[in-house]
This record gives sequence, structure tokens and C-alpha cells, in this order.
Amino acid sequence: MQPLVSIIMGSTSDMPVMEAAAKFFDEMEIPFEINALSAHRTPEVVAEFATNAHNRGVKVIIAGAGGAAHLPGVVAAFTILPVIGVPVRSSISIDGWDSILSILQMPPGIPVATVGLDGAHNAAILATQILAQTDAGIRKKLLNFKKKLADKVVKANKDLEKFQYKFRV
Amino acid sequence: MQPLVSIIMGSTSDMPVMEAAAKFFDEMEIPFEINALSAHRTPEVVAEFATNAHNRGVKVIIAGAGGAAHLPGVVAAFTILPVIGVPVRSSISIDGWDSILSILQMPPGIPVATVGLDGAHNAAILATQILAQTDAGIRKKLLNFKKKLADKVVKANKDLEKFQYKFRV
Amino acid sequence: MQPLVSIIMGSTSDMPVMEAAAKFFDEMEIPFEINALSAHRTPEVVAEFATNAHNRGVKVIIAGAGGAAHLPGVVAAFTILPVIGVPVRSSISIDGWDSILSILQMPPGIPVATVGLDGAHNAAILATQILAQTDAGIRKKLLNFKKKLADKVVKANKDLEKFQYKFRV
Amino acid sequence: MQPLVSIIMGSTSDMPVMEAAAKFFDEMEIPFEINALSAHRTPEVVAEFATNAHNRGVKVIIAGAGGAAHLPGVVAAFTILPVIGVPVRSSISIDGWDSILSILQMPPGIPVATVGLDGAHNAAILATQILAQTDAGIRKKLLNFKKKLADKVVKANKDLEKFQYKFRV
Amino acid sequence: MQPLVSIIMGSTSDMPVMEAAAKFFDEMEIPFEINALSAHRTPEVVAEFATNAHNRGVKVIIAGAGGAAHLPGVVAAFTILPVIGVPVRSSISIDGWDSILSILQMPPGIPVATVGLDGAHNAAILATQILAQTDAGIRKKLLNFKKKLADKVVKANKDLEKFQYKFRV
Amino acid sequence: MQPLVSIIMGSTSDMPVMEAAAKFFDEMEIPFEINALSAHRTPEVVAEFATNAHNRGVKVIIAGAGGAAHLPGVVAAFTILPVIGVPVRSSISIDGWDSILSILQMPPGIPVATVGLDGAHNAAILATQILAQTDAGIRKKLLNFKKKLADKVVKANKDLEKFQYKFRV
Amino acid sequence: MQPLVSIIMGSTSDMPVMEAAAKFFDEMEIPFEINALSAHRTPEVVAEFATNAHNRGVKVIIAGAGGAAHLPGVVAAFTILPVIGVPVRSSISIDGWDSILSILQMPPGIPVATVGLDGAHNAAILATQILAQTDAGIRKKLLNFKKKLADKVVKANKDLEKFQYKFRV
Amino acid sequence: MQPLVSIIMGSTSDMPVMEAAAKFFDEMEIPFEINALSAHRTPEVVAEFATNAHNRGVKVIIAGAGGAAHLPGVVAAFTILPVIGVPVRSSISIDGWDSILSILQMPPGIPVATVGLDGAHNAAILATQILAQTDAGIRKKLLNFKKKLADKVVKANKDLEKFQYKFRV
Repeated sequence: MQPLVSIIMGSTSDMPVMEAAAKFFDEMEIPFEINALSAHRTPEVVAEFATNAHNRGVKVIIAGAGGAAHLPGVVAAFTILPVIGVPVRSSISIDGWDSILSILQMPPGIPVATVGLDGAHNAAILATQILAQTDAGIRKKLLNFKKKLADKVVKANKDLEKFQYKFRV
Repeated sequence: MQPLVSIIMGSTSDMPVMEAAAKFFDEMEIPFEINALSAHRTPEVVAEFATNAHNRGVKVIIAGAGGAAHLPGVVAAFTILPVIGVPVRSSISIDGWDSILSILQMPPGIPVATVGLDGAHNAAILATQILAQTDAGIRKKLLNFKKKLADKVVKANKDLEKFQYKFRV
Repeated sequence: MQPLVSIIMGSTSDMPVMEAAAKFFDEMEIPFEINALSAHRTPEVVAEFATNAHNRGVKVIIAGAGGAAHLPGVVAAFTILPVIGVPVRSSISIDGWDSILSILQMPPGIPVATVGLDGAHNAAILATQILAQTDAGIRKKLLNFKKKLADKVVKANKDLEKFQYKFRV
Repeated sequence: MQPLVSIIMGSTSDMPVMEAAAKFFDEMEIPFEINALSAHRTPEVVAEFATNAHNRGVKVIIAGAGGAAHLPGVVAAFTILPVIGVPVRSSISIDGWDSILSILQMPPGIPVATVGLDGAHNAAILATQILAQTDAGIRKKLLNFKKKLADKVVKANKDLEKFQYKFRV
Repeated sequence: MQPLVSIIMGSTSDMPVMEAAAKFFDEMEIPFEINALSAHRTPEVVAEFATNAHNRGVKVIIAGAGGAAHLPGVVAAFTILPVIGVPVRSSISIDGWDSILSILQMPPGIPVATVGLDGAHNAAILATQILAQTDAGIRKKLLNFKKKLADKVVKANKDLEKFQYKFRV
Repeated sequence: MQPLVSIIMGSTSDMPVMEAAAKFFDEMEIPFEINALSAHRTPEVVAEFATNAHNRGVKVIIAGAGGAAHLPGVVAAFTILPVIGVPVRSSISIDGWDSILSILQMPPGIPVATVGLDGAHNAAILATQILAQTDAGIRKKLLNFKKKLADKVVKANKDLEKFQYKFRV
Repeated sequence: MQPLVSIIMGSTSDMPVMEAAAKFFDEMEIPFEINALSAHRTPEVVAEFATNAHNRGVKVIIAGAGGAAHLPGVVAAFTILPVIGVPVRSSISIDGWDSILSILQMPPGIPVATVGLDGAHNAAILATQILAQTDAGIRKKLLNFKKKLADKVVKANKDLEKFQYKFRV
Repeated sequence: MQPLVSIIMGSTSDMPVMEAAAKFFDEMEIPFEINALSAHRTPEVVAEFATNAHNRGVKVIIAGAGGAAHLPGVVAAFTILPVIGVPVRSSISIDGWDSILSILQMPPGIPVATVGLDGAHNAAILATQILAQTDAGIRKKLLNFKKKLADKVVKANKDLEKFQYKFRV
């Protein structure tokens, strides 16, 4: 089985954030791979990975990194697959500002699709939305997922009834 | 009994912040309702809620949200009732900066009355000030509340006497 | 004729921003007054103004200021009328950040309804929404204003047709 | 001919930024549509647009907005098409920080693929990368575009030779 | 005995920060007073306090506050005594940014001498430096204090010897 | 005649900002000196200057600098005279943030009395307030200055009458 | 002649900033080379450049870039030569914050020696300081340069005499 | 034995950050010294230290400091040795922003090679890279270190295999 999505991260210390993406793909039954590659410590590995991803059947890359988070941009330099960047609020980061700006502010020609801070879950949904373009099955699952999201909010709202106020109508 | 104020929030996880508003209305004896609605997960519910609020007797809406906090602005799009926005410093937020800017910086034509970060208590006071415009009873309660605020400061100052310094005069 | 809204500003140099509020009230035919008062240079005048505003028939106060923008908060200290604060990006301001935070982050008990940077126009709409609560005529005008806003967007969209692209559908 | 991409913007004043996307699609010969819709001034139009986009054959939506830039997120609430958000540094924006955070920091479940400030050109490339997934012709054009990018850098570097320094080797 | 310095704070919750000033005056044997006054909750008390401070013999005022920290500026509006402002990183504050900007960015004519975040200790030293201008005894104490500061650094450096490294010279 | 105040700046390029201080002292008839000294380019000159200032009769030092604005802090290291720091928004500065933080955030023991960005005028007023402590003549001039400030606001307010609105009361 | 320093930049549009480095080396008579290479548009060229720089005799690399400024870090990944990073405030940058953080906040193991915003001149001085370690001639030139810096400040101070004030001593 | 590198810090409270540099030199077998010196509390000691460092054989200085972190810049003023600055996120610092800007934004003529927040480890690597210029032994060790870095990433990636997912390929 070939992976449709490749999840990478700059350091295994990003795994607590990035595993949300893996879990989502398990839930959606989408084959994926997950690896730690460093744009700065193993640059040749990254270059090779990005250059070959398309040939291995990968359709979307999700790359998480923190601090001077170059990984998503460096990967995007070597491929025309859509690269989704996840800014990670790691211990070396300044509240996540460095992670966000290093991923978001790519130069003309080489976009990275950036999601919110620590947003690996949303990155996985976005990747699935891209895959859904050509796969009716995935599309159906996504519509179902979106419906459940709404149901959860409605149900959670019910829980607020436990807060008792005298003047609550 | 019809609610005069409607408190809504983007997620039930905002409740620890938003309940300060509910408590204030209980104290002021002002009928209110409180619900969790999501601008992004249940957009139709929000649209319907905002469109009908005036007809249900609601005079002011208080909306709390965090991160890309669209809820107050989206509600304001559907009503001409005053909408008070409470930026919430939630776990997905970047120290509250995203919550503040997403609520405050509304485009020309659709204002949101924004209060300070996690300022649900102040939002409730502001709502009460708006209601006081036409209700002498509420006005009297507010004046009384304001007097008590001052008294509390004066009394708290007394407590500083317990700090003993040799050169304190 | 008594003013329903009082517009004040920390310095006459804020007038280029604040006049948008005055223009809106002229358009809505709502009587207002407009003055420059300084929280720091004429504090007694401000205290007297805020204390008496309600007795003079004022229902809402709009206060604009820049830099360490204390005026809205200082006025709110002396009244229970709703005070709408307009952060002004004046020449002494740091891109407006000081103006926003000095107005928004009021302590518990004394809210200021803050609008966006240089948002005097939105402040006037918000004030009108508050007045509409008890005045069906104003309410009607506001609904009409909101409809025109939508029409303007629809019409502006038409203007985009002048941009000719070969692959535009 | 059906549009594959739909470009929308919160206001026609965003057009000087957003037209870079249109130009790219003309260059790539990809059918698109371009419209101004306001999340706050024409919310029903936005809801309808987003709900129906998929049925009209749209594969990707590019949404640009400034200030409390809710448009991309509001659109994403109504569709599972990938939504690419372009933060615009408009006149009401605080150096673009509000635009970025309002688009990027979406809640779990509703991602927006955010590109850099005023990054409409990169948004269009990203959209094309998504379309390339199923269209070998587009893929080829993109590879060609990427090659030209590199050539331009190499050629531009030549231009630096005109700077004459005595100790330049 | 008359106080030479008056320490005030916006709320007794600022006392854990502000007591560093009191302790320094005890150490320097300088008579002082310390009180909690709120610019927003007891504005008349603040006005009266500031207006009369000079007549009561006060030479310098130290004012600490957090959030929209108006207290130092409001006091400065009523007196020509030097006012030293201490930005407090209180629970309602956004990492102290609001406290700093609300105190520092005073308009032309009404300065506040601002010290660093939570810098009550430094505020007390600054007040003492101002008093030293006319009091040779205080001047001598300050010179002594400054010498001790240097000694402490020299002595602390000795403590670093406990860190054993093989290649430390 | 001995200078009572010494104005220094990190570079003559700060003079357009710092001359506001000189002008104020001329207006107040307070003898001063004004010089450009660089903490980094002429550190020995700065050390000697700061060490001897008190002996030359200087009572207060005003130091302006931009970027990594070390001058005020470095001067404060060598003297116990009050040092007033003026953060300058110079061309190398990042909107003044570096200038502010480098001056404001001094370590325990060595305060700098910081005024607002480009606040040389306010620095001069603050210096005069410090001098007024022991000079009744200066005190009288300051009270007069403060009165004129208020008068100017009152007079400026009159100028707003030229703005004609139909619904202005 | 072999270059001792290699100046690179992400785009020729960075040349107005980076040429200050070239000028300094001309002044110091240090052989250098200067090129535009893009981490994202010509990644293989960058990898090859960085890998071979040492063998070509280069001792220090100066890399300037703006926005998501990956160039300095990517170069540092391929070499153990000291890499000096110059954050450029380019048109795509958010006031330089992105440029600074993307260069400064490198992960453990791969440092970049970052200088101030647009600080190409200082980068060249730093490179020269590194070269001076083993070259007495360069060391002498640097000491001379430093002396001239001080002289310039002293001379510039003289120019301040042209500002005539009545109370200047 | 003479130290090749001198590590200094503004306060012994910076030691938990700075000891990472010491450890690296032990690992690389490079003789160093480590001391606490305060730019503000012991300025003469700092001046003397910086002036004489070169004569004592020191080749590179690493200076760590927090808040208004003047130490690296003040040292750079007195020497032409390369000075590496380490911004420390100390308790008086505002999330490290003050530390970074006070070190990074040095004026023209006096550079400081700044590394990331709390980046003492990277500062030591950078110092070693500078020393490697003339010492083949050190160069070899560095190349070895860099190789190990890459190996660690490869090995850490293996650890990710313990995360079991059903759809992981």
C-alpha cells in the first residue's frame, strides 16, 4: 500500500503535536507515513524525500516544525505537491511567533499552506479535503465528519444546562 | 419570561470565562439565556439565532470566542442589536492576540463592542449599562454597584495596613 | 434640542478620525455634540463632563484618543452611560497598539466598548444601535443602512467585471 | 466552461492584491471566477456561494480579506472544498497582523490554508498544485513554471555583475 | 513625620509587586506612605490625593498598575510632582504589554517616569535618586548601595567556581 | 554658569527628536548642555562624562537613543543622578520597539526613567519637575506651563466649532 | 585570487541592503564574492554552493534574506563555516519581524550569527573581525576603523554647536 | 593554559542557560573561562575585561544577558574580538523580546553575533566554527559533531516506529 499523505516533522519532540494528524488519517482510513526529518541536520535526506515523494504516490505533504521552522518551506522548494505547514509551539519557540512567520511568509513562487499554531489536526483535515477532490469515498467521509462536528456543538450546548442560574430563561 | 440578554460562546470550553457574565445578570436580576454556538461548525444555527434574536425580545448579545474568533462578528452581520465581543484566551490562542484582533478589527458598517481579554464580567456590566438606558430600576442597581466598587477599593486599602514597615508614615 | 450622543476626543488632532462619527449622526439625523477634552490636561473638565452627561440627556458617549489613551476609561469612571472607545493611530502612537490596549484592557467593573483602530464610523453605528433599542424610527433607519451596505457590495462586485481575463468564466 | 477556482475577496479594495491570483490563472490557462463578497455585509450571499461552489464544479476557493478577516473562515464553514486564505494588508489593518491571525487561527475542524501577507500569487500557485493532482497537463505547466523561477534567479544573479567592486573576485 | 514618597497602586492585588518599593525605603530610612487607589473605581479620591500630595510634603509619587494602567497618568494630570510609573504584569494583563504602553506613552505635557515591568524596586531607587539631589545623607546611602551592588556581582561570580569543567581555565 | 541638565544622544541623527528638550529648557530658562556621545563608539567618553556629571553641577541627565539603545543605561551605570531615557524611533529601529525595551527593561539596581517614544519634550518636563523640588521659581513656571496646557485644550476645542453639522447641538 | 568572504542574498532585490557589505570589504581590501541564490527557487545551487565554499577558500559566509528568510539557515546546514545572517526588511516582510525570527531562531546544532535588521554593514565588520583572528594586517585595519568611528562621533558632536540656544551652557 | 573563549553573563542567574556553552567546550576540549560581569553594576570591570581579552589570548567572547541586555554590546564597544550574544529569557524579561532586541539591534560599526533565545549551546558551536578557521583539529571535531547530529535525527526517526497506526504504511 502506498501512502497518500506523508507527515514529517523537524524533530521527534514535535510528535505530541503531530500525532493528531496521524490519528485523523487512521479515523478516515487514509494510508499515510510519518517521519522525523531535519531541514538543518539532515538536509540531503529532506531534499531526496521531497524530490521523490510524488513518485512514491504521495499526494500531499504535512510538515510540522518550530522556531526557525524551515522544514515546510525547504520541502516545498523540491516538489510541486501541496505542502501543508504546521507551526509548532516548541520549547525553543517564542510563543509560536517564530514558527508561524517562518512557515507562512514564503517568497513568491513557493507557497506553503499554513494552518494555525499546533494545528496538526486541521492540517490533516485540509489534506483530506485535497484528496477528496478525486475520491468520492473520502468526500463522503468528510461530509460525515463535518456533520458530526456540528452535532457535537449542539450536544455540548445541552451540557451547559447543568449551569443553574436564577435568571436564566 | 423573555431574555433581555443572550450570552453565546464559540465552544463550551469558553464557559469558565463566560460564566462571569451569567453570574452578574443573576446578581442584577436580569433575565438572560446562555448557549454555545459555533460560527464555523454550526453556521446556519448562528445565522438563524442572530436573525431572530430581536424578535425574541433580546436587547443585547454577548459573544465570547477565542483564536480566529469570528463568532461576535458573524452574529453582528445578521442583526442590528448591539453585539458585545469577549476575546477569550483559550488553549488554541496565541496569548489572546488572535482573539482580540479577530473581534476588534471589524470592517466599516458592522461594529462589535469589544471588551478586554477574558472580560465577560465587564461585558455583562456594559450590557446592563445599555439596558439601563430605558429601565430606571436597572439604572439604580448599576449606580449602587458602582458605589460598592469604590467602597471595596477603600476597604481593601485598609487591608494594606497589615504590612508593617518601620518608615511607613 | 438635547444631544443624544456626545463625541469627545483627547485632542483636536484626532478630529480627522473622529469626524466620521459626526457625519454618520448627520446622516441618521441624530442630535449630537462634539468636543475636545483631555484626560491629562483638563482632568477636572473631563470629570465634570462625564458626571453631568446623563443629566443633560446624553445616552451614549463616544471617546477617541491615541497613545496612552486614557480618555475613554477616565470618562467611564465617572458615569454609567455606555462609553464607546475609539483607538486613534495618532502621530505619537506605536502603530496604534498603545491606543488599543490602553482603551480595551479596562479593569473589572469599568468597561469601555472598544471598536477597531480609527473606527469612529463604527463607533457611531454602535451608538445608533444602542439608541435604536428604544426608538423605532432609528431602528428603521439602521435596517435601511444595513441593506444599503449589502447593496453596495453587490454593486461593487459588478465593477470587478471591468477586469478582463482570458480565462475568467 | 466551468470555473475550477473561485477567487473571492471581502471588498473590491482588495483587488490590487487579489488580481495577482487572476493573472496567474490566465498564465496557466485555468478557468476561474472572481468576485467580491462580504462575510459581514452580505452573509447570506456568502453562505449560498460556499454551499453551492462544489456543485458548480469549483475545486478550490481562494479568499482574500483584511482586518478582522472572517471571509475565508466563514466560507470554510459551509464547504469541504479546500479554502486558501490570503491575509490582506488593507488600510484598516494593523500592519497585517489582524488579517493573518483572523485567517490562520481557525478552530479544530475547519482549516483554512493560509498563505503569506498579500500572497495572492502564492495562493494561486497553491491552488494550481492542488488541481495538478489530477491533471497531468497542469502538472507539466507547474513543473515548467518552477523551472523558470530557478532560471530567473540564475539570470538575475548575472545582473549583479554590473556592481563593480575592486576586491570582488 | 511627613512622607517623602507616596506609593500607590491600582489594586491591592498589585501589592506583591509594589512591596519591593516599601522595603527599599525601609532600608534607606526614608519615610513613605503606601495606599491602594483606583483611577477608575475611586477617581475623586485619586484626584484629591494627587492635588494635595505636594502640600503634605510628598516629593515623589510611585504609582503601580496593570492592564489599561491609567493610574500613573491620571495622578500626573493633577500634580507637577515627578510621578514614577510601575507597569505591573497582573492577571488581567497581556504579558505586561498593555501595562507598559498605557503608562509609557503619555501625551505631550504630562510625563510619567516609567520603569521596567514589575520594577517597583527600581522605582524606589529612582525616587531616592531624586531625593538625593537635596539630601547629602541620602546621596551617601545611595552611593553605598551602588557599591554593594557591584560587590554582590563580584561575590556571585566567585560562586560560579563551584561549576567544575575539565577545560575551564 | 553651570548646566543643571545635560542632554545627550547616541548620534547627532537623534537631534531632530532631542531638540524638543533643548527648546523647553530655553523656554523655562534652565541652563543646560547638549552633546552627542555614543555608548558603543566612544565608551570611555561616556564613562567619564557620567562619572563627572554630578561634580560639574548637573542634577539630571536626559539620554536619547534608538535601536539597541544602551546609552541611557550605560550612563546610569556610572552615576546616581536621575537618568531620563528617551527611546528614539530612528531609521535603524523596528518601529521603536527595540528602543523602548532596551531603555525600559533595566536590571534591578540601575533604573532609567523612561518616557514615551520620541518623548524628548516630556523628558524635559520631567527633568524640570525634578528640579522644581528645590527651586520655587521653577515650580511656579511649571504650574504656569500646566495651566497654559489646559487653556490650549479649551481654546482648541473652540476651533472645532468651525466644523458645521446639521444635527450638532 | 580566492574570495575570503562570500556574500549571498535570497533575491537581487536585497542588493540595496547587501551592497553595504561589499563596500566595506572594498574599503578593507578583503577579496570577496557576491551572488544571489534562492533557498527555495534554486535549492540545489545553494546546497552545492554551501558544500564547496570551504574548499574554494571561503572563510565566512554572509547571507541576507527577507520574509521567511531561510537562506542563512539552509546554508548553515551544509557547512561548518561561520554563517552571518542579515535579516532584510523587504517588501514582502512584516516590518522585518519575520526576517529576524526566521534567521535568529535556529535549532540546536546549526547556529546562524544574526545581525540587526538590514545590518549588512555590521555583518561585514563581524566577518572582518573573524578574519582578523589570523591576519595581523586586517586586525590593524579594524583597530583603525574603530578609532575613526569614535573620531566621527566626536566630530559630529562639534556640529551640534550650530544649534543656538539661549540657555545652553 | 590560556582560554580561547571567554563566556560571560550579566548575572549568575543566567548560569542555567549559559552552562550549555561550557559543556560544549568541555566536549570539544577547548579551553575556556566563565564569569559573571554586569554591564550596569560593574561597568569598569567589564571595560577592563573587554579591553584586555585579546591580550590574554581570548579569540571569541560569548556574552549572555536578559531584559535590557546591554552586556554583549558594551563588551563589543571595547574590543574587536567577535562577540556572540545570547539573549536570555530571564524572569525580568518580557518573553525574551527585550533580550533579543537589546542584543541584536546594535548600531552601525559595533556588531554582535546574536543567536536564538537561550541559545548558549549554539553560541558555543558558532565560537567553535570561528576557531576552526585556523585549527584543523577543531575543524575535524566539528565535522564529526555535525555528522552525529544527523545520525541522531535518523535514529530518533526510528523511535517513531513505536507509534502504531492502522493506516500507517
